[in-house]
Amino acid sequence: MKLTAEPDDGLDAIPGFPVVLITVDNNIMTAAAFSFYSFKPPSVMVGIIPENLTFELIAKRREFGINFPTSDQFEEIITCGTASGRDENKFETTGFTPVPGEVIGTSLIAECPLNLECQVVHQIDFGGSHCWFVGEIVKAHIEESYRRDRALMYWNREFRRIGAIVN
Amino acid sequence: MKLTAEPDDGLDAIPGFPVVLITVDNNIMTAAAFSFYSFKPPSVMVGIIPENLTFELIAKRREFGINFPTSDQFEEIITCGTASGRDENKFETTGFTPVPGEVIGTSLIAECPLNLECQVVHQIDFGGSHCWFVGEIVKAHIEESYRRDRALMYWNREFRRIGAIVN
Repeated sequence: MKLTAEPDDGLDAIPGFPVVLITVDNNIMTAAAFSFYSFKPPSVMVGIIPENLTFELIAKRREFGINFPTSDQFEEIITCGTASGRDENKFETTGFTPVPGEVIGTSLIAECPLNLECQVVHQIDFGGSHCWFVGEIVKAHIEESYRRDRALMYWNREFRRIGAIVN
Repeated sequence: MKLTAEPDDGLDAIPGFPVVLITVDNNIMTAAAFSFYSFKPPSVMVGIIPENLTFELIAKRREFGINFPTSDQFEEIITCGTASGRDENKFETTGFTPVPGEVIGTSLIAECPLNLECQVVHQIDFGGSHCWFVGEIVKAHIEESYRRDRALMYWNREFRRIGAIVN
């Protein structure tokens, strides 16, 4: 039987989105408000709450790194999602190694198997809880042993692995 | 060892996004270009290639349904992702049952355990391959037995189940 529910309950029930670690400058923030944007030019977008330091940094630097952690890096993911870069250097707290981007000035995370260097090309701000930045991917770094199934998904207090291939 | 790669390879390597069946009017389209947009007001967004019938219909009707299929509905998902509503009625082809929305005029899919009724509040079009519509969720319908882990994810030719909880 299907129940009619409020919009918030519907939003909460969404399966999940990829967990990413957004880097700007020397700061790291965990996010699941991450999406594909366009194939040509290849671009992605991130949604940031304007009160966050990351918003301030992206608005200023006009670039960001998208680092895909593995499910093994759960502790670091939690740290980067709860601590604020205003209080601590999260590269130091987590022990993650910063690697300078080839194109962008922002640090990428060496321990993440996939990194995307992005330059902000558009800002989407219609006044909701999140402001979105569209970033064109200008360079990527992929571990030779990269496997999609090491990734972590998140929504509404549930972290999940990504599961088996169906097709 | 990490290899430097082109932007397209980086985009391809993304883990996956939830597979949704977008309904507008009496048409159905499979998409993974689906994202959260904002908590307040609760809203989501869908990315559509402007050549698709679904683009035309959303642009006209200013509303859409987001229907989350289960991994059991794989065949229907493929049909709704390959056939065009210009050639056939996909409710008829798949055997899915259309149910009118409570708020929107568009049909929802009875067999999907989670449906979101959305009204378009913004259109995002910076000229890439996709145009995005932000829809405020105005009503939701959730099966009593709904479980997030029946969902399907997709990216770059891989359909995957969503996996086990980590936290």
